[in-house]
Amino acid sequence: MVGAGQLARMCHQAAIALGIPLRILAARADDSAAQVSPNVELGGPLVADDLARFASGCEVLTVDHEVVDLDAVAVLDEASTVTARPSASALAHATDKAHQRRRFAEAGLPLPRHRIVTDVDTALAALDDLGWPGVVKTARGGYDGRGVWVLDDRAAAEQLLDELSGDGVLPELVLEVVVPIAHELAVVVVRSPRGDVTSYPVTSTLQVDGICRETITPAEVSDAIAATATDVALRAAEVVGAVGLCAVELFVDHAGEVTINEVATRPHNSAHWSIEGAACSQFENHMRAVADLPLGCTDLTASYVVSVNVLGHEDGRDPLHHLGDALAVPGAHVHLYGKGPRAGRKLGHVTVCANDLDDARSRARAAVAHLGDPVPETVR
Amino acid sequence: MVGAGQLARMCHQAAIALGIPLRILAARADDSAAQVSPNVELGGPLVADDLARFASGCEVLTVDHEVVDLDAVAVLDEASTVTARPSASALAHATDKAHQRRRFAEAGLPLPRHRIVTDVDTALAALDDLGWPGVVKTARGGYDGRGVWVLDDRAAAEQLLDELSGDGVLPELVLEVVVPIAHELAVVVVRSPRGDVTSYPVTSTLQVDGICRETITPAEVSDAIAATATDVALRAAEVVGAVGLCAVELFVDHAGEVTINEVATRPHNSAHWSIEGAACSQFENHMRAVADLPLGCTDLTASYVVSVNVLGHEDGRDPLHHLGDALAVPGAHVHLYGKGPRAGRKLGHVTVCANDLDDARSRARAAVAHLGDPVPETVR
Repeated sequence: MVGAGQLARMCHQAAIALGIPLRILAARADDSAAQVSPNVELGGPLVADDLARFASGCEVLTVDHEVVDLDAVAVLDEASTVTARPSASALAHATDKAHQRRRFAEAGLPLPRHRIVTDVDTALAALDDLGWPGVVKTARGGYDGRGVWVLDDRAAAEQLLDELSGDGVLPELVLEVVVPIAHELAVVVVRSPRGDVTSYPVTSTLQVDGICRETITPAEVSDAIAATATDVALRAAEVVGAVGLCAVELFVDHAGEVTINEVATRPHNSAHWSIEGAACSQFENHMRAVADLPLGCTDLTASYVVSVNVLGHEDGRDPLHHLGDALAVPGAHVHLYGKGPRAGRKLGHVTVCANDLDDARSRARAAVAHLGDPVPETVR
Repeated sequence: MVGAGQLARMCHQAAIALGIPLRILAARADDSAAQVSPNVELGGPLVADDLARFASGCEVLTVDHEVVDLDAVAVLDEASTVTARPSASALAHATDKAHQRRRFAEAGLPLPRHRIVTDVDTALAALDDLGWPGVVKTARGGYDGRGVWVLDDRAAAEQLLDELSGDGVLPELVLEVVVPIAHELAVVVVRSPRGDVTSYPVTSTLQVDGICRETITPAEVSDAIAATATDVALRAAEVVGAVGLCAVELFVDHAGEVTINEVATRPHNSAHWSIEGAACSQFENHMRAVADLPLGCTDLTASYVVSVNVLGHEDGRDPLHHLGDALAVPGAHVHLYGKGPRAGRKLGHVTVCANDLDDARSRARAAVAHLGDPVPETVR
């Protein structure tokens, strides 16, 4: 697995159970997964030589994040040095939003109204045409709210575009309407090389400033919307050619229209709840899928499952020092990632399974309030 | 944690979630837990210097098995080099069956009729008095059926006692009646330094030749027997002075009488089911308890939970090569320990949670039949 963040850490836990020897390529020796695994090699995911050296000892190559030298992955895969799961071409849908939009549009999948542009004049005209406020996303390099701007008017757009073309060349941009969001959903799909496909129940995600704070599963939407979201996600994952986990983030507007927001070709924050809340977790299913083993059951283990992220508190507290307070909250399943505390950083998550949604949410939030930045009560 | 077997391996998984840095003292670099943890020191659990070196880097010392130099542990604990949880005196109840019987008898806990002897003549007279067939156990050094003999008559006893006193000195023995067993039960108790105590639902264990093959939770016994078993186990764990997990194995005879068979002061095979079958697993609760954190909920997550051990198949197969077949069984949670395949060796376990006991059992057994020695159909 390329990358040693918390996703690799939780995959390692799943791999231990299955007895699958998981090797990890870590950028730093103290990366989240590198702290807990003995099979760690140091190297850069964007360094072709590092990838080649790492891959030569693996049967299958998978990723904890998509910021990887895809050309190098493609070369290793084609040379049968390693089998990339997902493939470089699948990963490209996550690393290049313009490519993703083009591919999904070709497949007839529902998308927010958008334009793909590479020069300032076309961009401004497109934004005027889409209407204000408008969304600007860099095609490549965005993550957790970075590389995405919501602009109120043409003046703001002119300033941003000027900044973005600092070196004289505007990077490729995806421009979109601001979808009036009734719900943000995520559907996590699992696909295996042998052709097995499954998906987790639809999750609703609470995003604040582009960062996921909380997930609720099953999402509080109608059966019809859930069915549409699942159908769109399964089709999107097929277009992507995903192997392993594929998380599809979706918008639902006030008319109930479902459109695709983002896609990730790896385990995803929106399904951390599945460790306790599903019969088989996303991490185990990712391991199963990339090893081409039968997939596990994605059924819920409780009526409601709420996961709340632990974001670093402004006071710099180490959540490990407050573990006792969090564990004193009944039913709080605490996951800490071993990361240095820094305000706003994802340091862990807490999951609560319950028969009542408000009960699950209030307990998960109560535990998180000890560990990190509390979710404001006004945020629902 | 002293010892790097599968219990340490599963504790490591739990420690990863909690963010607790777990160090492991392994006898060999390829021990089950050493394969999956980066924080491993090599050394012998019976070598005082190794224990001292290891303990000097730990706040708390706990164990994956009881075959540890208890005197060394006691010295380190008294010198405040480390806090032993459980203490050497608690561990002594598991390593010395004579001590355990004396302590439990003093406390008025129900035990099979027994005698503790150190010479051949007294032993023979005691066995005659207890009645034939009789059970002979060495006070120290037994494990998984070793060090325990069921003898049909005086001639067999004379031969065994002669062999045991090969060096002229008979080791201390516990002699017992053969309890006519209706059920073998296990109750796993969790105790923390701050005084919190909880226990898991009563499990019935299926033992073949002294080795646990299968566990069923909740045990199919009357509420009255389950309550007695739980009460006896809680009292036994208190007498032991256990901190962390304390597994109490019990006999139930055909009249419903409950007596104590064995006690272990560590996570235990009889609660492997708790990983998926309880809100908080025995491994997480052991980590919580020894770190003096609040204990987790031990409630069942399903109506029935069956775990079946994977014992090495006679044909020497590596269960990892048959993982796909096992995972194809719906709902089979497979745990492999990374141990070299050898006939009869505990290589893993499979847990199935279901609403119906026969369904859970047949699926767990079906998965295990791919991985290792199948449980004979006649065995219930």
